[in-house]
Amino acid sequence: MKTKSFAAKAPEKALEYYEFERREPTEYDVEFEVQFCGVCHSDIHTARGDWGETEYPCVTGHEIVGQVTRIGSSVTKFKVGDRVGVGCLVNSCGKCNPCKAGLEQYCDKGATWTYGSNDPIDGTDTKGGYSTIMDATEKFVMNIPDSLNMADAAPLLCAGITMYSPLMHWKTGPGMKVGIIGLGGLGHMGVKYAKAMGAYVGVITSSPEKAETAKQYGADEVIVSSSEADMKGAIRKFDLIIDTIPSAHELKPYLELLNVDGSIVLVGPINPMPGFHGGELIGGRKSIAGSGVGGIKETKEMLEFSAKHGIVPNIEVITMADINKAWDSLVSKQFSKRYVIDIQKSFT
Amino acid sequence: MKTKSFAAKAPEKALEYYEFERREPTEYDVEFEVQFCGVCHSDIHTARGDWGETEYPCVTGHEIVGQVTRIGSSVTKFKVGDRVGVGCLVNSCGKCNPCKAGLEQYCDKGATWTYGSNDPIDGTDTKGGYSTIMDATEKFVMNIPDSLNMADAAPLLCAGITMYSPLMHWKTGPGMKVGIIGLGGLGHMGVKYAKAMGAYVGVITSSPEKAETAKQYGADEVIVSSSEADMKGAIRKFDLIIDTIPSAHELKPYLELLNVDGSIVLVGPINPMPGFHGGELIGGRKSIAGSGVGGIKETKEMLEFSAKHGIVPNIEVITMADINKAWDSLVSKQFSKRYVIDIQKSFT
Repeated sequence: MKTKSFAAKAPEKALEYYEFERREPTEYDVEFEVQFCGVCHSDIHTARGDWGETEYPCVTGHEIVGQVTRIGSSVTKFKVGDRVGVGCLVNSCGKCNPCKAGLEQYCDKGATWTYGSNDPIDGTDTKGGYSTIMDATEKFVMNIPDSLNMADAAPLLCAGITMYSPLMHWKTGPGMKVGIIGLGGLGHMGVKYAKAMGAYVGVITSSPEKAETAKQYGADEVIVSSSEADMKGAIRKFDLIIDTIPSAHELKPYLELLNVDGSIVLVGPINPMPGFHGGELIGGRKSIAGSGVGGIKETKEMLEFSAKHGIVPNIEVITMADINKAWDSLVSKQFSKRYVIDIQKSFT
Repeated sequence: MKTKSFAAKAPEKALEYYEFERREPTEYDVEFEVQFCGVCHSDIHTARGDWGETEYPCVTGHEIVGQVTRIGSSVTKFKVGDRVGVGCLVNSCGKCNPCKAGLEQYCDKGATWTYGSNDPIDGTDTKGGYSTIMDATEKFVMNIPDSLNMADAAPLLCAGITMYSPLMHWKTGPGMKVGIIGLGGLGHMGVKYAKAMGAYVGVITSSPEKAETAKQYGADEVIVSSSEADMKGAIRKFDLIIDTIPSAHELKPYLELLNVDGSIVLVGPINPMPGFHGGELIGGRKSIAGSGVGGIKETKEMLEFSAKHGIVPNIEVITMADINKAWDSLVSKQFSKRYVIDIQKSFT
């Protein structure tokens, strides 16, 4: 199946139009015509080789929604025309303990990621949603609830679940104080979910001009990380901090904001991180943790939760003509929403 | 009250005989004649200035047991002649949330440590148990259960609680695999507690010659950290690792041994630690945590647990004549027990 896409053809280069032949779907696969694809900072990291060797051309995109066009002969849960989505994962071994526990993203054999991963079926490099056609094993395809519009739903599949999962795992609820570091595509979803779960929410940002936006999203408080007074005032304030900074950074200032028994959960930096002082953990039974997206069962729960509570990302819909500009804007941290690519408009 | 002791008079110097005037006990204080005092690696760190500025002469020792000689007029729970002990803490504010939760070691105002801390009562530097007389606020004094002999009980007050507390907090029990890094004074207690709690226990050590000893203490398995085969065979094996290494060290090899959702808990290094790779946490929802000794309520529970299960440290009783040699032996990592100083024999 010939697929139109935009791809990185080398590190640091602008994305360019690129066509490729998508392998035939297996009997377990669901194929769909992509309508929208969200733009994630991981797309940039991968295309630019920040996380290790990248195979080029590299077609990114893992917040993908569209309408089913074909199903394999063994597929039972989908039919042609269904509104569906695929997030960061397209396959996993299915047999190890993490897979059996619904934590396919932590598969002992290594999950098959939506792009830049070795496809166990034909050995090629997986290609993501900056393209007209997508397919995945039935288990990794999700129905989009009727009340969500398709463009809004796309970013839920990575930005949404990446925040929802640790908030749920660390038991966010009333009486709890949650800090969200960063107010980009992930951070702004974190504010909305944490509020919907009943927590007090503080946004910790390096950009004072984002304070108003943070409050519009529901934050109870904004802490500007460059303000000594703000940071001092928040010492031992938070039970949980979700840290969305997408690259290496010092943890010391944020560890001080954790209450006794608090955890800071990294969801962004798949990078070497600087050191920390052991006393900062030992002196308050604090934790530095990590969390990666979410499993399929939990992603479905997140879609239902989002539909029920009317939680959608703030998005700006673009076409591929604007993709390089959009990436630059993400890198410069000036954007507190999620870009979503209208795929159909991009390739007409 | 004139007190005889051994003290560090400068960093890196051998300990020397030193007399000082102990302040009069307050109405809330319990004073006791010290019988035994355990030797902790923290004594060395503090005396040598590894953890910041140290005031000299510095009298260390925070595993202190003895017999009550005087009580203040408001003391209700102790009488002269009682067998008692004091661990790492002699006071705290008593009013903050951690104090109210029984976590005095994490007091918002900073706990008063048994040595090298500012005594809120007279502003002097607190002095520990390498001395003939000790006193502390009643709340921080503990009864030693009858079935424990005094020399055995001393190390429970730091080495014991430092291991018991995180094992309990991280819910050690049957079906769980616990790794203990290091087989010194702390590590060997960790093996005994984790076994008594019903877990499978692996010891991770850099000293292959400690394997037999580890098994005698109850370890189900010994992993030699310099053996590539041992370390590879233990990838994702442990749900919880308690890391007793007392100074800065790389975490990478140990993070790989953690199962999905596993935690490594640092109890030793109050030092700047090297960096880690964010992907190692994010790729398995793992945590790097810290834990510092335990609160008073939990220390009492630990003493009862130890008495009930017959858990005591393996000790070698020495006198002050051997203290400098004992410190050297701890630094060289060649010792899998706890030294305990017979204070009364030392000062006759």
